[in-house]
Amino acid sequence: MASGTKPVVSFLGPVASYSHQAVRQAFSEDEWELRPVVTIDDVFDTVQDQEVKAGLVPFENSTNGSVVFTLDDLADRDGRYKDITVDGEVYVDVHHCLLGHKDTSSTTEDGADGSGTCTPTATDPSPSRPRTKPLSSLAHIKRLYSHPQAFGQCNAFISAYLKGVEVFEVSSTSKAAEIVSKDETGTYAAISSSLAAQIYGLDMLGRSIEDRSDNTTRFLIIGRNPTPPADWEIVKTPTTTTTTRPGSKSMVSFTVPHDSPGALAEVLSCFQAFNLNLTSINSRPSLVKPFQYIFFVEFEGHRHDDPEGRVRGALDKISRVAGSWRWLGSWERQR
Amino acid sequence: MASGTKPVVSFLGPVASYSHQAVRQAFSEDEWELRPVVTIDDVFDTVQDQEVKAGLVPFENSTNGSVVFTLDDLADRDGRYKDITVDGEVYVDVHHCLLGHKDTSSTTEDGADGSGTCTPTATDPSPSRPRTKPLSSLAHIKRLYSHPQAFGQCNAFISAYLKGVEVFEVSSTSKAAEIVSKDETGTYAAISSSLAAQIYGLDMLGRSIEDRSDNTTRFLIIGRNPTPPADWEIVKTPTTTTTTRPGSKSMVSFTVPHDSPGALAEVLSCFQAFNLNLTSINSRPSLVKPFQYIFFVEFEGHRHDDPEGRVRGALDKISRVAGSWRWLGSWERQR
Repeated sequence: MASGTKPVVSFLGPVASYSHQAVRQAFSEDEWELRPVVTIDDVFDTVQDQEVKAGLVPFENSTNGSVVFTLDDLADRDGRYKDITVDGEVYVDVHHCLLGHKDTSSTTEDGADGSGTCTPTATDPSPSRPRTKPLSSLAHIKRLYSHPQAFGQCNAFISAYLKGVEVFEVSSTSKAAEIVSKDETGTYAAISSSLAAQIYGLDMLGRSIEDRSDNTTRFLIIGRNPTPPADWEIVKTPTTTTTTRPGSKSMVSFTVPHDSPGALAEVLSCFQAFNLNLTSINSRPSLVKPFQYIFFVEFEGHRHDDPEGRVRGALDKISRVAGSWRWLGSWERQR
Repeated sequence: MASGTKPVVSFLGPVASYSHQAVRQAFSEDEWELRPVVTIDDVFDTVQDQEVKAGLVPFENSTNGSVVFTLDDLADRDGRYKDITVDGEVYVDVHHCLLGHKDTSSTTEDGADGSGTCTPTATDPSPSRPRTKPLSSLAHIKRLYSHPQAFGQCNAFISAYLKGVEVFEVSSTSKAAEIVSKDETGTYAAISSSLAAQIYGLDMLGRSIEDRSDNTTRFLIIGRNPTPPADWEIVKTPTTTTTTRPGSKSMVSFTVPHDSPGALAEVLSCFQAFNLNLTSINSRPSLVKPFQYIFFVEFEGHRHDDPEGRVRGALDKISRVAGSWRWLGSWERQR
C-alpha cells in the first residue's frame, strides 16, 4: 500500500510508549499511519490543524489520577482547539516488564536469583512481596534504566531481585529500552513495556513486575467530528423510566456564573433531572479569575443516539444555568 | 521566652518557602514555634502523631490547580490520618522577586537595562511585555537560579531583562536564594520570595516580576480538632429561606457505591437540598478498584455553627447515599 494514502492518527510518543500500545489497540496499521509526536499539545495541534485525522492522548491513570495537560487542552481557554471533539476511549493495562539481554553464560535458569523476600527497614517496616519472579537469572545486571514513575510502581520487585543495581532515571520507559538495546556489555536492563521488547529486540527478563495488578491508563481519541444531525432540535420532555443506549459516554466542560450561589450544584442537577449517570468529574483553574474553575463532567448517554431526548434535555438545561459550556463529544464506552 | 514551651506548627519547608510565608501570615511567632519539615506527608505525620499542634500544607494554586499530594493525604486510604481535621485556610499572593547583590560599581540607577521589549520569534510570535521593570541595574548578572515553575511564571521579565544569562534549575525558590547568598562574585541572582530576601540578606533587584498578577496559593491549616458539641443531634428539617453564617466553609470526602447508577449526582444533590453552595470539587483514584474515586467537596457552612441544621441535614443525607464519607473540617473563610 502506498504511503501517504492512509489517514494518520497522532499519538504521544516516543515509539513503544504506552500511548503507542493504546493507539495500536484502537487503530489497525493496515488502514492507518500511526505518527508519534512529542507532546500532548502536539497531538491537539495536529488534529485541530487537520494534519491528521485523529489523535490519542492519555486522560487518566487508575493509580495517579487525571492528566492535567490533557484537561488543560480540553479546557481550550484561548480557543485554539475549538473544533476538537472526543470521539472514543482506549484502556491499556499497564504491565511493566524487565527487559535486557539474557545471560547466556549463566547456568541458572530457574529465576532463583535473590531471596524474593524483602528485609524490613526503619522506613519501610512491612515491605510488600513481589507479585512475580524473574524469568531468568538477573545476576549479571549492573544498571537499571526507567522513568521515575515506573520505578515507583515496581518497588517490591526491585528490592527483592535487583538489590545493589545502579539506578538511572530517564525521560520515558521506551527511552530506557532504547538505551539498553544499544548496550554491548549485556549488563543493562530497563523497566518498560512488552511492546518495547518487540520493537527494540530485547529479552524479557521479568513480566508484570509492578506492585499493583490493576494499574490501568485510559486514553481518549480526539478528532474533529461534531456531526450534529440535520434535524437537530432540543427535546424538552424528559423520560425517566427507560434507559439510554448502554455503553455510550459523553463529556461536557462548563464554567459557573460567579455571582450565582449554588450554580455548580444547579449545573450538576441537570444530569440528575434527566437521569443521566455521572461517571467522572474534574476541574481546572479557569485562569480568568483566581479560584474560578472549568469543570469537566463525563456522563452516560450519547448526543447523537438519544431517542428519549435525555442528553438533549440536559444540555438544553445546562445552556441556561452554566456561565459557559461546551459539548466535547460522545463515544462508545469501552469498559 | 523559653523554647519548648510554645505550641508548634509544622509547615512544608525549607525556610523562606511560600509555605513559610503562609504560616507566618496565620501564626504569630511570639506564640508559636514554626517548624519546617521536608514533605507534605511529614506535616500530616507530625500532626497525627501529636508531635505538633497544627500543620500547614499547600492545597491549590490559582494557576496550576490542586496539589495532589495533599488530596492523597486527606483521602487517607489506609487510615494513617484518621484524626486529622481541616481547621483553617490561608491565601498567599505569590509575587516573585529577583534577588541578588546590587552592582555598587554601576552608575545606572534607573533600571534601564535592556529594552523592556521582546522580539517576536517563530515559536512565540507575540511575546507578552513584562509587568515591571528592574529596581536597579542587572548588567552584572551572569547566573540565574530558581525552581522550574518560577522560571515558567516569569517568562516576560526574563526575556526582556535577563537575555543571555545562564539559567540553573534548583529544587525550590528558597534554595535558589540560599545559593545566591553564598555567591562571592556578586553576579548570581535568584527568583524567589521577598521573605527569602529578608532571611538571606539579599538585595531586591526586581519586585513582582511574574507574568500574571493574580497568582495565588491557598494553604490549609490542619489539626486534630473534631470538637463535636456534647448535644450533637441531626436536625432533619431544612430551612431554605435564610442564609448560613457568612464566611464558613466545610470539607467532606466521600466515595459512591459502585453498583448504584446516579450515586454521585445523588450525593451532590444533598448539598443543594439544604441550599449549601459548593465552592470546590476534586477527585482522586480510590485505589480500591480502577476508576473508582474519592471525591472532595468544599461547601459554605459550619458543622458547629449551624443554627438552622442545614449542614447537619446534608451530612445526614450523605451518610445514607454515599458509599463511605468523612467530615474533614469546618473553618472561617478567608476570601
